[in-house]
Amino acid sequence: MRITDIIRKKRDGLALSEEEICFFVNGYVNGEIPDYQIAALLMAIYFNDMNDDETVFLTKAMLNSGEKVDLSNIDGVKVDKHSTGGVGDKTTLICAPIAAACGVKIAKMSGRGLGHTGGTVDKLESIPGFNTSIDRERFFETVNKTGICVVGQSGNLCPADKKIYALRDVTETVDKICLIASSIMSKKLASGSDKILLDVKVGSGAFMKDLPSAEKLADTMVKIGNNAGKQTKALITNMDIPLGNAVGNNLEVIEAIETLNGNGPEDLTLVSVELAANMINLATGESIDICREKAKNAIKDKSALNKLADMVKYQGGDESFIYDTSLFKKATYSCDFVSRKDGYIVKTDAEKCGIACVYLGAGREKKEDKLDNTAGLIFHKKTGDKVSCGEVISTLYSCDDSLFDSAINELSNAFEIGDKKPKKQELILKIAE
Amino acid sequence: MRITDIIRKKRDGLALSEEEICFFVNGYVNGEIPDYQIAALLMAIYFNDMNDDETVFLTKAMLNSGEKVDLSNIDGVKVDKHSTGGVGDKTTLICAPIAAACGVKIAKMSGRGLGHTGGTVDKLESIPGFNTSIDRERFFETVNKTGICVVGQSGNLCPADKKIYALRDVTETVDKICLIASSIMSKKLASGSDKILLDVKVGSGAFMKDLPSAEKLADTMVKIGNNAGKQTKALITNMDIPLGNAVGNNLEVIEAIETLNGNGPEDLTLVSVELAANMINLATGESIDICREKAKNAIKDKSALNKLADMVKYQGGDESFIYDTSLFKKATYSCDFVSRKDGYIVKTDAEKCGIACVYLGAGREKKEDKLDNTAGLIFHKKTGDKVSCGEVISTLYSCDDSLFDSAINELSNAFEIGDKKPKKQELILKIAE
Repeated sequence: MRITDIIRKKRDGLALSEEEICFFVNGYVNGEIPDYQIAALLMAIYFNDMNDDETVFLTKAMLNSGEKVDLSNIDGVKVDKHSTGGVGDKTTLICAPIAAACGVKIAKMSGRGLGHTGGTVDKLESIPGFNTSIDRERFFETVNKTGICVVGQSGNLCPADKKIYALRDVTETVDKICLIASSIMSKKLASGSDKILLDVKVGSGAFMKDLPSAEKLADTMVKIGNNAGKQTKALITNMDIPLGNAVGNNLEVIEAIETLNGNGPEDLTLVSVELAANMINLATGESIDICREKAKNAIKDKSALNKLADMVKYQGGDESFIYDTSLFKKATYSCDFVSRKDGYIVKTDAEKCGIACVYLGAGREKKEDKLDNTAGLIFHKKTGDKVSCGEVISTLYSCDDSLFDSAINELSNAFEIGDKKPKKQELILKIAE
Repeated sequence: MRITDIIRKKRDGLALSEEEICFFVNGYVNGEIPDYQIAALLMAIYFNDMNDDETVFLTKAMLNSGEKVDLSNIDGVKVDKHSTGGVGDKTTLICAPIAAACGVKIAKMSGRGLGHTGGTVDKLESIPGFNTSIDRERFFETVNKTGICVVGQSGNLCPADKKIYALRDVTETVDKICLIASSIMSKKLASGSDKILLDVKVGSGAFMKDLPSAEKLADTMVKIGNNAGKQTKALITNMDIPLGNAVGNNLEVIEAIETLNGNGPEDLTLVSVELAANMINLATGESIDICREKAKNAIKDKSALNKLADMVKYQGGDESFIYDTSLFKKATYSCDFVSRKDGYIVKTDAEKCGIACVYLGAGREKKEDKLDNTAGLIFHKKTGDKVSCGEVISTLYSCDDSLFDSAINELSNAFEIGDKKPKKQELILKIAE
């Protein structure tokens, strides 16, 4: 088998066989095939796509390139949850404790934030003492004891995906559904849970900007998961407007705690409950209505909040912060972003809000960047709200007041004020299973 | 300027500016841009093409990456001739001495053969003593004295083209007209002649398999040449059937000499006279009919043959070979390929004939391969000829008789015998200027 024949085949629009896909993935990982031939192949894939079979073969080859986490020492049904990334998306901090409180086992590996989207690991680390890099044995032990543990990615999972992703990142071949789906799913399958719930975000703050792309991504990932013998569901949810009223690491943890206390913003509560209900449904097979009631009850009776506190304690964090959010460190400086006219907010561009947060120190432009856990935004008004000239739309927080100018500038492009109240957007757009 | 933005722009189907094309060509040559980004860009160009402006910019950028030969020390109009490569194509050995005999200055750099097509340098080196790597000063001197000198490529011409071509070769991005045209024309422009005649071959033995592709390549190259201020013309000529009756290095030199003696095969004589006439036309501006008469006369009065002998003498070769072809070394072994049925030859696949010659030792599969100058084929019959069962179609020559089997096998796939005499093919299909 020759890599040039594989490149030519894909260039000419033909489907690759499982053997051919394994050949290039393995050859690339072990250094036999150079970067430039894989770069040419990735661009040919960008243009000629991969069919469902090829995407499954690619996922399997990347999955088989490294370690697979074995969760069989954990009793019960393990359900993983993955979001394709959004702005203000702190749902894992809410739906995972709810699901755990309802008996679902959560043995989750999460990522860090990059670009305009945040990451669960960064958010959890704003709780003093919280350890996201505990060893495999203690990870299993914690899930067995408390039903939930959330850590950063560790071990040699999917080295082929790491190497191919790094190459895609510098060759403008990131933005292709078959490549995104196989990258996400190879990692999810390597993480060892029995069932997988995907939250595919769509809109201005998501990687998928329109519903058809989000549907295609969701369908592709669901097919890959089910094909690998792991029941997989995907919710397509709105990320045109930031989710909830807080963006930034400890601001989001505080809002998640408020939501588990029953005092969360309506949009965040609705999406989190729906995700939790679907996780419970995957684990138990009970009707989604029953699961939704269970999820709501876990908020009402504080069992989900207590589950979060348990997790924090077992992972070395100070659980008192969960019961008293005033303990969280506050930003040194704050600054208001006000409306310049009367009217209705007709647009809250989520990506621009995310970028404003990066400017404030809450996110990373490069992997090495350090975070300001206190930095971020609180929205007092969002799309659909009435504002008058001079009224505060959002408060900005940072430990460096020289950063406000660029953030305010970005925010002023994020908001649009119009004369008419806009139509309310749906939050849960589709379910794929 | 960032290479990723350039890749994305081409990926998304937009035209690149001159600055962007210079940026990636120069960045690649000086090692600032890695192979894998250029590989991705080349594949994006493969899919989204380059328009005429971009192709001109790419040619210029590659031309400007290295040395440009200055032929101003040579008096008169210097005309270059380039063939896109064919099987049995020894026209340079005929048309260049004819044109030189008619006063055109020929200061030509030629290539070696690769794959199923031969190269002029290899053919000339089968004349004992002939030196194709003489220094620049002696090159100029020889053209000034004799009007003609043909050498191998030397100096640091178009290093960007060399590096990009090597990358295209291993990333399946060779076969793209804008890339082929800019690669050829950057070298032609760097070689310093005043006018350029292109012989674009089309058919089974050429890189361009059909007339529309050949026309597009011819038009693109003519535009590039004229745009650079060098008058350029292209003939599109038939390479569906091998040209002449000899394929192989010294067999082709002998056939070229016979043609200059007025005893060449009809097809080879016609194409060579037409090429010579167009070279004379480019140099003098006289009508093509007058130029054709001049070319024919240069054969009739032996002035072209004497010009070839002069060139051989000045380049260190033994000129007596030009006047007595029986001096050429003969292959140790020969073997006949015979027809297995009665009928007409309806097809003589030129590429397969070329491959058979490579098997016999006459060509190179890789750059390092050594050549057997005596190896090759003589056709006694070609497309259109009547044959009877057992009649010899071709004689094979080689210094290694173990090579005949695979060559015979290839030849048996090259020829097709049918019941009806096929329509005669045109030799000169189009002229682009």
